[in-house]
Amino acid sequence: MNNDVSNKSIVELEKTLRYIAGIIKRRGRQILHNYPITSPQFIALQLLIDGGDLTIGELSEKNGLAFSTTTDLVDRLEKNKLVERIRDTNDRRVVRIHVLDKGKRIIKEVIKKRQDYLGDVLTNFSKEQSETLNELLHLLHMEMNSHRDNKNE
Amino acid sequence: MNNDVSNKSIVELEKTLRYIAGIIKRRGRQILHNYPITSPQFIALQLLIDGGDLTIGELSEKNGLAFSTTTDLVDRLEKNKLVERIRDTNDRRVVRIHVLDKGKRIIKEVIKKRQDYLGDVLTNFSKEQSETLNELLHLLHMEMNSHRDNKNE
Repeated sequence: MNNDVSNKSIVELEKTLRYIAGIIKRRGRQILHNYPITSPQFIALQLLIDGGDLTIGELSEKNGLAFSTTTDLVDRLEKNKLVERIRDTNDRRVVRIHVLDKGKRIIKEVIKKRQDYLGDVLTNFSKEQSETLNELLHLLHMEMNSHRDNKNE
Repeated sequence: MNNDVSNKSIVELEKTLRYIAGIIKRRGRQILHNYPITSPQFIALQLLIDGGDLTIGELSEKNGLAFSTTTDLVDRLEKNKLVERIRDTNDRRVVRIHVLDKGKRIIKEVIKKRQDYLGDVLTNFSKEQSETLNELLHLLHMEMNSHRDNKNE
């Protein structure tokens, strides 16, 4: 822990981030009510779209879920024709999860609704405030990623 | 949606918040590995401590979970002696959920570990940056709350 950032600041930040994450989670769940996917399935599809065709092992790691849980999740997504299992072109022993058009379309729509919600919430933010918030959150995200690498998780 | 905040800014913010929330969620899950509670139980206990002794209905609303799901969750917490059901002193027909000392102690420890993690992550933040981030997230949180009230959720 550093000396610059006060303990009070950290306590407040942990609390505010916890509350904001909770609100976003509930809002995300409401949005998903109109779609044939669950919250864990949304997270998995979004990780697969952003990260490319991952293996079950890679997806488990990014998800923070057990291998068996991820396998069950992918089985259900495949049954609903949202993903398919494909062979890696370089190493045919490796199986990767590929998101199908139906899955991509759903994720695109869901993320658009999440953006619309944030747009509504930011009505009273100035351009400068939203840009500063973006910059600082981007920095926080990078620090979280590098902290994760350091700990070799 | 307003005209000040650009669409690009909203798209970025949605994405960064989604990723940060995901990282915090996974970290939170790791921290809970050492405690006898699940993530949904952590959220419920934290809402009960911050919000006072809530009824099952109030807790369901804050949680965004079905009444029956919340009832099951509280049953498990009560069985593990983390909460108890008590009668409202003003209206004895009303049952409230009260967090017991064991539950309070666990939440305090878990939140301390989450703060320690954020303190580590913020090592490269200046005092000013962390304070600005706190202010803007606090504003975002308030706007999210007022937006929720407007929609009468």
